[in-house]
Amino acid sequence: MQKREVRQDDDRTRPGRLFVVGIGPGGPLDRSGRAVEAIVASDCVVGYTRYVELVSDLTAGKELIATGMTREKERCRLALARAQAGKTVALISSGDPGVYGMAGLVLELAASERITVPIEIVPGVTAASALAAHLGAPLVCDFAVVSLSDLLVPWEQIRRRLEAVAAADLVVAIYNPRSQKRTRQLAEAAAIFRRHRPGTTPVGVGTALGSPGEQILLSDLDRFLTLPIAMRSVVIVGNSTTKRIGEWFVTPRGYKV
Amino acid sequence: MQKREVRQDDDRTRPGRLFVVGIGPGGPLDRSGRAVEAIVASDCVVGYTRYVELVSDLTAGKELIATGMTREKERCRLALARAQAGKTVALISSGDPGVYGMAGLVLELAASERITVPIEIVPGVTAASALAAHLGAPLVCDFAVVSLSDLLVPWEQIRRRLEAVAAADLVVAIYNPRSQKRTRQLAEAAAIFRRHRPGTTPVGVGTALGSPGEQILLSDLDRFLTLPIAMRSVVIVGNSTTKRIGEWFVTPRGYKV
Repeated sequence: MQKREVRQDDDRTRPGRLFVVGIGPGGPLDRSGRAVEAIVASDCVVGYTRYVELVSDLTAGKELIATGMTREKERCRLALARAQAGKTVALISSGDPGVYGMAGLVLELAASERITVPIEIVPGVTAASALAAHLGAPLVCDFAVVSLSDLLVPWEQIRRRLEAVAAADLVVAIYNPRSQKRTRQLAEAAAIFRRHRPGTTPVGVGTALGSPGEQILLSDLDRFLTLPIAMRSVVIVGNSTTKRIGEWFVTPRGYKV
Repeated sequence: MQKREVRQDDDRTRPGRLFVVGIGPGGPLDRSGRAVEAIVASDCVVGYTRYVELVSDLTAGKELIATGMTREKERCRLALARAQAGKTVALISSGDPGVYGMAGLVLELAASERITVPIEIVPGVTAASALAAHLGAPLVCDFAVVSLSDLLVPWEQIRRRLEAVAAADLVVAIYNPRSQKRTRQLAEAAAIFRRHRPGTTPVGVGTALGSPGEQILLSDLDRFLTLPIAMRSVVIVGNSTTKRIGEWFVTPRGYKV
């Protein structure tokens, strides 16, 4: 981690710094102590509008910079600029900033713009873990995490990964499964998994995890496509051993029970 | 989730319940508010000895049941029995109980022994997320999580999964990479990835995350096998796009920076 020199001609002695903070699935109880400390210590909180609202209990008196969806670069640049100006800044992501969050982009931008403030990534509970906890224990053995968003990644690469994961009998957590404009990808993913797994394979869908309107649905590979699934959903597809135990989904780890 | 009926002939009106709690990487700041609440609300805390010690700041006056490694079934049975007897019980795992933790086994045992106390899984930050935050953003795109322990899973299945993940150019987080007795598996995994990725591919190793003695090491695919790697380590192997930016490892997500 690079440290910014304290400028002697500055009337403040504290150099700026940037926390990239995961707030977990969404509610106040989902946050780690480290995430709370980072936000409380910050002068300025930057994030997507809905995430800034989710931490409003911690931000009284702080500068708030909330911008809309797809403004990720702008948010990172604003957070870096504030930190370079000597502020302590929290750039917040829901879940874990290291899983489809802002951690990568902010480090890339800091390097390309030669901004050398200290940066600390504060991990959070990612949506796959949060959904798994509601469902039971689908991810308790090996698994893969794949996003179906082909905005930044060619679909051919995503398709190849889904094929490999399906063939290797890995449980998969699917992020960004569907949006209003983008519906074909999830149907194609389901078809790939259906070629390798029975139609009765358990599938769980979590939407708006940790927020009002949270919805957890249990289904199977042959039927889950008809469920309400949107941008804010995560989908977990079991493997050949994942089974239902009452209301729970469990992927057995091989213990003799 | 199944609810246990309150027995009318009991002199207590509160039925027992079981929390399966992830305490995150290890330190007090790593815990979520929900994990703290569950432990504080419990009469009895059950776990592997080291994990029970990690939450000692929360357990004054509570019954503590700490058992050694490989006693997972015993711990689950003790926790279920205490809950069935009317106690509120926290069965604790480091990291996330839903990722190589106790969530699966306890649900399987509850079903096979027909124990119907309410069970709630409290997710935590898993070691892969914690290590990724120290390294930068290696897992910010698609990734897989694979354990090399062949105690409960045939090695042939693990090897097949590693081959699939390597060929699909997925970043991988490897749990249980090596023990004193079990050293061949990590070398074989490295050879598999080396056939698909250059020797300069970034590899990060985290040991004793969140605990005193925490160690984070940066290396590459050709050299990391000589590092100190043990049971308590997690290893992240980058993919063909993962790059070093100063001291950070980042897997770019495709933003134009």
